[in-house]
Amino acid sequence: MKKTDVLVIGGSATGLVAAMTAKSSYPDKNVTVIRKEEKVMIPCGIPYIFATVGDSNNNILPDEGLIKLGVDIMIDEVLDIDTKAKTCKTKRGEDLMYDKLIMGTGSLPAIPGWLKGSNLENVFTIPKNKDYLDQIQQRLRDLQKIVVIGAGFIGVEVSDELNKSGKDVTLVEILPNILGATFDDEFAIEAETILKQRGVKIKTNCGIDEIIGNGKVRQVRLKNGEIIDADAVILSLGYAPNTELAKKMGLELNAFGFIKADQYRRTSIPDVFAAGDCAEKVDFATGKLSKIMLASTACTEARTAGLNLYELNTYSTFKGTVGIYATCIGETAFGVAGLIEKNAANEGFKVVTGTFTGVDRHPGKISDAHKETVKLIVSKQSGVILGGEVLGGKPAGELTNAIGIAIQNHMTVHDLLMAQIGTQPLLTASPAAFPLIKAAETVAKTLRSI
Amino acid sequence: MKKTDVLVIGGSATGLVAAMTAKSSYPDKNVTVIRKEEKVMIPCGIPYIFATVGDSNNNILPDEGLIKLGVDIMIDEVLDIDTKAKTCKTKRGEDLMYDKLIMGTGSLPAIPGWLKGSNLENVFTIPKNKDYLDQIQQRLRDLQKIVVIGAGFIGVEVSDELNKSGKDVTLVEILPNILGATFDDEFAIEAETILKQRGVKIKTNCGIDEIIGNGKVRQVRLKNGEIIDADAVILSLGYAPNTELAKKMGLELNAFGFIKADQYRRTSIPDVFAAGDCAEKVDFATGKLSKIMLASTACTEARTAGLNLYELNTYSTFKGTVGIYATCIGETAFGVAGLIEKNAANEGFKVVTGTFTGVDRHPGKISDAHKETVKLIVSKQSGVILGGEVLGGKPAGELTNAIGIAIQNHMTVHDLLMAQIGTQPLLTASPAAFPLIKAAETVAKTLRSI
Repeated sequence: MKKTDVLVIGGSATGLVAAMTAKSSYPDKNVTVIRKEEKVMIPCGIPYIFATVGDSNNNILPDEGLIKLGVDIMIDEVLDIDTKAKTCKTKRGEDLMYDKLIMGTGSLPAIPGWLKGSNLENVFTIPKNKDYLDQIQQRLRDLQKIVVIGAGFIGVEVSDELNKSGKDVTLVEILPNILGATFDDEFAIEAETILKQRGVKIKTNCGIDEIIGNGKVRQVRLKNGEIIDADAVILSLGYAPNTELAKKMGLELNAFGFIKADQYRRTSIPDVFAAGDCAEKVDFATGKLSKIMLASTACTEARTAGLNLYELNTYSTFKGTVGIYATCIGETAFGVAGLIEKNAANEGFKVVTGTFTGVDRHPGKISDAHKETVKLIVSKQSGVILGGEVLGGKPAGELTNAIGIAIQNHMTVHDLLMAQIGTQPLLTASPAAFPLIKAAETVAKTLRSI
Repeated sequence: MKKTDVLVIGGSATGLVAAMTAKSSYPDKNVTVIRKEEKVMIPCGIPYIFATVGDSNNNILPDEGLIKLGVDIMIDEVLDIDTKAKTCKTKRGEDLMYDKLIMGTGSLPAIPGWLKGSNLENVFTIPKNKDYLDQIQQRLRDLQKIVVIGAGFIGVEVSDELNKSGKDVTLVEILPNILGATFDDEFAIEAETILKQRGVKIKTNCGIDEIIGNGKVRQVRLKNGEIIDADAVILSLGYAPNTELAKKMGLELNAFGFIKADQYRRTSIPDVFAAGDCAEKVDFATGKLSKIMLASTACTEARTAGLNLYELNTYSTFKGTVGIYATCIGETAFGVAGLIEKNAANEGFKVVTGTFTGVDRHPGKISDAHKETVKLIVSKQSGVILGGEVLGGKPAGELTNAIGIAIQNHMTVHDLLMAQIGTQPLLTASPAAFPLIKAAETVAKTLRSI
């Protein structure tokens, strides 16, 4: 029987980072990654295979890091695990013994049971599966009218890309705005305006009644009775943790169906860790169970599991999901970190917000200057920054990260107002009108006046 | 006699922000800014008037913010202040009474006394003075060979811009590398390579012996005997605090000639505050007096002064200069926050550093992807992040700010390694190979092995 000290199941962001961290932290241990796919998709890059990078082969998660460190890669699938004997059986008939196990089985596209017609030909989802994605791309080549259902990040990015590739794209969303679960309305509306200007047809406040077709999809009927012609439908209705194997093994799941995991990412079974989309997450601010799945958070969890495999250390713990995301529509980036205003209120926070709009270069006459807006969401009681939203040029992604770092340090808005930032004409807003600081100023003033 | 509650002397970044903060914090008070210039230059934007924005009129610090808040603007110069009577006399013959005074008199280009020939015609400095800068631009129109002396940020940016405008530019620096006081060698060398590729001639390790001419400048003789032809010379040898008025008033200065100022930016005389380039700074990490002058830091100090004018509050204090800067040469941005390795060692820190080079998009095949390198400088004893350096595309400016926020929160490298960041294919590096986190990983591993 083949033996490995550390077995990592799953080869996406979680598996890659968990295995690299494990090997790097415990170089004397053998580390094996087992994954189904020969070639792994960069998860966040998937929408961009439809136009920007043109082909799934331009979106491959490289194996170099694993190989360089001496991690073994097995292309196979684990079918069954005996967690007492610490052995597993694979699809290709291997028997494998492990000492420590990291579950990085990820997530699968959610297809709601009520959705009639989802099994018709040319109805697709966006899984992290190269073969399937290659098939979609081939099939879409001769199809023109595409209906994308669900306007979260994936739905928006896929719509924008298909539109860019020349398709006739209609994006349908049940919420009042695209990206409406992630951004406060004022940001979501700007995203919607830009996406429309780029040519995507958008239908918000629209539930789906049925996907209609005869073998192949032909139309989508909305709840309001409207019928949209469709050569293909793409379902982007979120993802569900992939826990088939976990259930078989007897791992405890939480109420949302994620594998229970503590701050070290240990599960309910000794020597079994879980990280990434399949693993339980609590929200950084509220402590409540969270459903947010992000590759970046998955990497943090994977590092946590890898570092704590053989020796716990209190400084490498997962502190709960902050939820830092960004997207980019045309030249405009949208970023969010932590709680947005509407969610903070729902969670029971009393908040004060401040928004400032400036420009991300100084002087504003520099040719690639872009409008930059920052909104901060701050606890009224403590002054602690709970969240931030950014609209801007491409540096807005990293500006969102600066806010994320502030949130993770429990900075108050007063701390942030006094924070020093670096500014440069070609790279950032002016120091006198830096939207992040000016938004903090607005909040701090409101707090002083209460 | 005219009366104002708050008098702010100086109209650059410090004066603007101090006055706006004062008025915004104490709306019942009259706030007056007195400044010499009708139109104020955006300080950091000055190098870019030579090519990128083309004209000093495209680099004006707007007055709208002051006007909107109801701050009075006086174009005049304070000649004398009686700090006991709290009155001042201006050049235009006004007598003005104040209650609180903020000194924001800024800095002036340093011209070393030993430099022979610095008073020749067509030898220029780069002051924050529109009339003077307009004169330079006019004079340079017919001059081709420009020698820039001093390769700090201003020298580098002015050289790059003059080269961009078609001039024959030679940049001379006494240190082994351009930007050598601010960046560790590996970053400085990359900056140098790019600037050379763009056409600027660079002479490092070169002291200046004399500027030669007969009325007008004709040549520059280096310490090594080499002679460079020059139609014009630009001296960018740093700035000295402008404290003429402060001395006259009897304000205490520190050993470096800056106006002494505490954490609230209060000076040695009651009701007189000082902020920005003219005001004393200590280093955030070492507590030692600092000579670093930055518009961004000046704005933080100006906010501190403005907020604490009539009521001290312990959460709005200036914590000492972190030193967060960036520049951009062509498409490559260079940023630094806090201590660099060579300075940390000189100050008595034992440090561990970690560097990681990746790419600032994912997949790297996205068309505007740029190499991204992050170096972290970390205290060996505590694991606290002392500094960071970044090379990358334009988002490197904001990534430097994320590091700056981490430093100001005294984050350890372990905290940073566990930090969640947001990533997006079109905006940032991959979460699995995010240079900031990977650099932290390298340092954390070294610390664990010690």
